[in-house]
Amino acid sequence: MSFSVTVLGSGSAVPTSRRGLTSQYILCRGRHILIDCGEGTQMRIRKYGVKFQRIEHILISHLHGDHYFGLVGLLSTMHLMGRRKQIQIHGPKGLKEIVEMQLNYEGARLAFEVSFNVLDSKTVGVVFEDEKISIQHFPLAHRIPTAGFVIREKLAERHLKAELAQQDGVKIAYFHRLKKGEDVIDEDGSLISFEKYTRAPDSPRAYAFCSDTKYSEAIIPSIQGVDLLYHEATFIEQHLDRAKATMHTTASQAATIAQKASVGKLIMGHLSARYDSVEQHVEEAKVIFENSEVAEDGETYLL
Amino acid sequence: MSFSVTVLGSGSAVPTSRRGLTSQYILCRGRHILIDCGEGTQMRIRKYGVKFQRIEHILISHLHGDHYFGLVGLLSTMHLMGRRKQIQIHGPKGLKEIVEMQLNYEGARLAFEVSFNVLDSKTVGVVFEDEKISIQHFPLAHRIPTAGFVIREKLAERHLKAELAQQDGVKIAYFHRLKKGEDVIDEDGSLISFEKYTRAPDSPRAYAFCSDTKYSEAIIPSIQGVDLLYHEATFIEQHLDRAKATMHTTASQAATIAQKASVGKLIMGHLSARYDSVEQHVEEAKVIFENSEVAEDGETYLL
Repeated sequence: MSFSVTVLGSGSAVPTSRRGLTSQYILCRGRHILIDCGEGTQMRIRKYGVKFQRIEHILISHLHGDHYFGLVGLLSTMHLMGRRKQIQIHGPKGLKEIVEMQLNYEGARLAFEVSFNVLDSKTVGVVFEDEKISIQHFPLAHRIPTAGFVIREKLAERHLKAELAQQDGVKIAYFHRLKKGEDVIDEDGSLISFEKYTRAPDSPRAYAFCSDTKYSEAIIPSIQGVDLLYHEATFIEQHLDRAKATMHTTASQAATIAQKASVGKLIMGHLSARYDSVEQHVEEAKVIFENSEVAEDGETYLL
Repeated sequence: MSFSVTVLGSGSAVPTSRRGLTSQYILCRGRHILIDCGEGTQMRIRKYGVKFQRIEHILISHLHGDHYFGLVGLLSTMHLMGRRKQIQIHGPKGLKEIVEMQLNYEGARLAFEVSFNVLDSKTVGVVFEDEKISIQHFPLAHRIPTAGFVIREKLAERHLKAELAQQDGVKIAYFHRLKKGEDVIDEDGSLISFEKYTRAPDSPRAYAFCSDTKYSEAIIPSIQGVDLLYHEATFIEQHLDRAKATMHTTASQAATIAQKASVGKLIMGHLSARYDSVEQHVEEAKVIFENSEVAEDGETYLL
């Protein structure tokens, strides 16, 4: 079952022709999630072929404009394109007020319900959970309250050994319970063992999003062992003073977090517009954590 | 002296790959003016090579998002790019509140002053005036309070007949007064006639912007005789019912306004995303007003 991250914007603060403002589309076990929504996100959603009416959850990390100024425009477009399905927005205090004020001045109501879930950016907590996935938020260390997110799939069902089950005449009606890991006693009183007819499920995958933040080891418990980590790397070590002053991270620091948290892979984003090339970021990071790369707009990363 | 209109976005409601959301850059006698600022305007300002730090006035016609959702992002970018010079924003009640709320949550102050001028969208009035230009607002007829704008240059100075003045030994010190249309008595007591040494100035040009609005002849006195009229033509006559329901205009109606107001040229914009081609708009308009065309993003129209 697919779990993918499509980077809609990997720039910071000021958009460039190469990097739009922060936004990502995550497809996880059939759930459609948008993280952050900088200005122009609706245009890039269209450009990269994401079906935006499918989006069910929008997570906003913090109230710096490059992470959310595209939100109200996206909602308006969803409305104009005929959306009727409710959407859930999870973000910091103030977001609801900002969005509602703008929608009120529009002089028209959205044809779908917007449900706001206010996140306490100072604590670890659950954003959303159902039978297939869970989303957690955790505090990042930035100039204003900011949340990071981890999206985890839950343990999937066991895989049915379909051929063997068919051969042995196991009834289709039992498949559901076997895949859940339950033994079944059939009408004759004989045991049908789930261990015989199923294989262990794939191990659950996890994705973590950390932007914006200064270097902070406090986030490690929240992102420990995730398969894919997106961590901001606004600067390189040469500009460490800028990183410190603005509470952002360097490529080395992002890689250090990736290494300490034993993640599978690191993608760096939120690059300052001052960097024309990604070489220095990649070089710096790889010294510390080999499986590092820089996110590019339009790229899809599979977990 | 240049007077030009650069269309940054000529679409309506929902951006497409061809048409961005409403915004125009006007250069008039050295004054730099932005009209409307839909989402993505800052990207298109950059794409089309406008020097956005020069912009002194931003006029916002109304509070439908496709006309102003890019404003706060543009201000943020101006700040990040080092702006120190004050900017004047002229728009309807509510705009200041919306912008300030978003800037407050940013947790940082802009390094330049934003001066808000609240326009009463129900009346005709002056937006701004100096020795070179005047900008007027007037009511349009839309679903929420909406203003149209006319930018007029003032009568310029007379043109000096430089060769003749030099030949006759007229002192440079007198040129300024002659160009203002004043006769000068020189030290010998002889008359230096401004009529002899100058030609009449160019007649002042004017540009009118009308979007969004339903067909309304009430606007004609405000736009009478302008050289260039931008009028919305969201629909064609075939969709007159949609135009009526949404308080927008058809191409025929826009051309009728152009014809009744005896303007020099009509450019139609705010086209609905449903139209792939502009042919029907142009055809419909030209029957009524020959000098009609459809605005295209990135085009500059000289007055």
